Amino acid sequence: MTKVFLKKKIQSRILTGHPWIFGNEVGETSGPVEPGDIVSVFTHNGVFVGKGYINPQSQILVRLLTRDKDEEINDDFFLHRLQKAWEYRKKLGYVENCRLVFGEADELPALIIDKFNDYLVIQTLALGMDRWKDAICKALTQIFNPKGIYERNDVPVRELEGLKQQKGFLSEPFDTNVIINENGLKFHVDIVNGQKTGYFLDQQDNRREIKHIVQGADVLEAFCYTGTFSCHAGYYGAKSVLGLDISENAVATARRNAELNNLQDVCKFQAVNAFDVLKQWSKEEKKFDVVILDPPAFTKSRENIQKAITGYKEINLRGMKLLKPGGFLVTASCTNLVPPSLFLEIIDMAAKDARKKIRQVSFQTQAKDHPILWNIENTTYLKFLIIEVS
Amino acid sequence: MTKVFLKKKIQSRILTGHPWIFGNEVGETSGPVEPGDIVSVFTHNGVFVGKGYINPQSQILVRLLTRDKDEEINDDFFLHRLQKAWEYRKKLGYVENCRLVFGEADELPALIIDKFNDYLVIQTLALGMDRWKDAICKALTQIFNPKGIYERNDVPVRELEGLKQQKGFLSEPFDTNVIINENGLKFHVDIVNGQKTGYFLDQQDNRREIKHIVQGADVLEAFCYTGTFSCHAGYYGAKSVLGLDISENAVATARRNAELNNLQDVCKFQAVNAFDVLKQWSKEEKKFDVVILDPPAFTKSRENIQKAITGYKEINLRGMKLLKPGGFLVTASCTNLVPPSLFLEIIDMAAKDARKKIRQVSFQTQAKDHPILWNIENTTYLKFLIIEVS
Repeated sequence: MTKVFLKKKIQSRILTGHPWIFGNEVGETSGPVEPGDIVSVFTHNGVFVGKGYINPQSQILVRLLTRDKDEEINDDFFLHRLQKAWEYRKKLGYVENCRLVFGEADELPALIIDKFNDYLVIQTLALGMDRWKDAICKALTQIFNPKGIYERNDVPVRELEGLKQQKGFLSEPFDTNVIINENGLKFHVDIVNGQKTGYFLDQQDNRREIKHIVQGADVLEAFCYTGTFSCHAGYYGAKSVLGLDISENAVATARRNAELNNLQDVCKFQAVNAFDVLKQWSKEEKKFDVVILDPPAFTKSRENIQKAITGYKEINLRGMKLLKPGGFLVTASCTNLVPPSLFLEIIDMAAKDARKKIRQVSFQTQAKDHPILWNIENTTYLKFLIIEVS
Repeated sequence: MTKVFLKKKIQSRILTGHPWIFGNEVGETSGPVEPGDIVSVFTHNGVFVGKGYINPQSQILVRLLTRDKDEEINDDFFLHRLQKAWEYRKKLGYVENCRLVFGEADELPALIIDKFNDYLVIQTLALGMDRWKDAICKALTQIFNPKGIYERNDVPVRELEGLKQQKGFLSEPFDTNVIINENGLKFHVDIVNGQKTGYFLDQQDNRREIKHIVQGADVLEAFCYTGTFSCHAGYYGAKSVLGLDISENAVATARRNAELNNLQDVCKFQAVNAFDVLKQWSKEEKKFDVVILDPPAFTKSRENIQKAITGYKEINLRGMKLLKPGGFLVTASCTNLVPPSLFLEIIDMAAKDARKKIRQVSFQTQAKDHPILWNIENTTYLKFLIIEVS
């Protein structure tokens, strides 16, 4: 097996548990390097570090799969890792739907698998993981005997790995319009055309957090996508719910979700630019009891972080202005580029500019089926905050 | 009304919302100062800041009650503040039992009121608040018509205010052994002799967080006090639960709590020094599926912070060693002197020393009936963490 030796100065991050090895962190390499191959990694002075897959075309040259010298990387390896990932979810009660594999946090870098009852959706986001797609599907079939497996590899990040974007069946074809149960409601999941893997499971626990505050309330949700928070608000007893999203498709699905739960009389949706409407309505002094903001990531690169900060501040300031005194702002951010402390700072700045007093009710992360490794930054990504605004 | 003028240099903390004014932050005072009186506070150049109560004997000279020039501090003021506090708890679904008033976070500095179904327990921890005890009881009677009100002012901090420690009825006497419902279980609350106000409501939501991980598990709880986490573990399907606490009284109540929930066959308790037992058993390589650590504050002063850090690290290291691979550590810290980031650092250090890999499942604060004001440090005090340990 080809051997990769780390440079002396930068090896500590890797030795303390981070699985990524950047090209400039590697000194010598002995042996042939085929993109996607499994290599052994050693410290500069030859101490074994781990085994992982290599891709000279990627900024992340090697991603470690194991720190165990005796662990072979083969079909069984993937079977065992997937079994372990499933055991964890079962222990935490995520049985029907879950993020079955959360990449680095499950020691399976660049692999994402979401389970929607009997269906599995997978993303292999690096070349070295993509190589094992067959082994992964075989293991999934053995563990779950699923009704279907689908690949949602239509993700630009794959191109950095020299992989093409693609999506399609990894099992016999099946009806990709799936209905899932969540917190007593039902939701349409469009495995082929929904965002990411078709549905945002990471908010499944946070959606319950609005249970009490929406009772009897007039609720506005901006960036509502397929209306999952809105439907929860209706289900938990809101007087009225208005969801806004720029996508006609998303709004159409949101309406279907409301109907599926017999909430069409309470939950209304409009396909509009939420930025514009928040601005307009705050000028018109419209007022709600609860405002929910669950926007998409405003940036995907560290270079545009200021743009994200400005975006979050803007919508949260507008959201606060749209609240009656003592109303609740429910606000989220899903990019790991804005860490929790920065997100709270942004909200604090927005409150000062809006001349509002705020009080923290609840501050959460993503659901527990997306566990967090403290030394791997990108596993802490979702911030979910409820504040009282007066 | 006596006027107090802030010094120019240190007024910004107060202007941005903090209600405490230390003696060395005040320049001139015009008018007589009787300890406990309401005074008006102004900036160095005469701009109105707020009204609050003064006590020259306390390090905290003034605690602000309002920033509104037109708001009179009288019986109605307390009625309105208590009504507002109750509205907030009701909106969040904390109806039977709740921290009704959480001091500074409810703009009622140094006042704590816990509601245990029809009974109210109050603490007035500063002289200026103690003065209004009658007004507070009158307002509580008007809002709740409670079966009883009790004063748990047996708290050393009162002596810093020149107040004596005391406890007793503030209503007609009543049976102070109360039973409350929490998460489907029942618990004894000893209003007279229980710690603090008789019961720790701040963990009421966190106790539900163990629901899935304890199923079929052998659970150890150290510092179990009256066994509330232990009983939850039994209720949620643990195979066995062992709770340890140094207090014979606490253990006796824990056993009564187990019996009250018909969990006496699953939940056992021992009156022992948990520090010693954790150490001993980790040497003996005893193993559990779940270890719960909810210790008392290891320090009450900033000077002894290192002692607290050492204590937390020690018990968490032992707790990790007592877990089977893939087991869960449930660990809390209730002192605001250890902020959340430091608590996570301590756990990380403990894991490194124990040579364990850890993964964050959940990280919470106190329940939502104890809201958090970001600019008032001591409102963020409870840390509740679940990690997987392997």
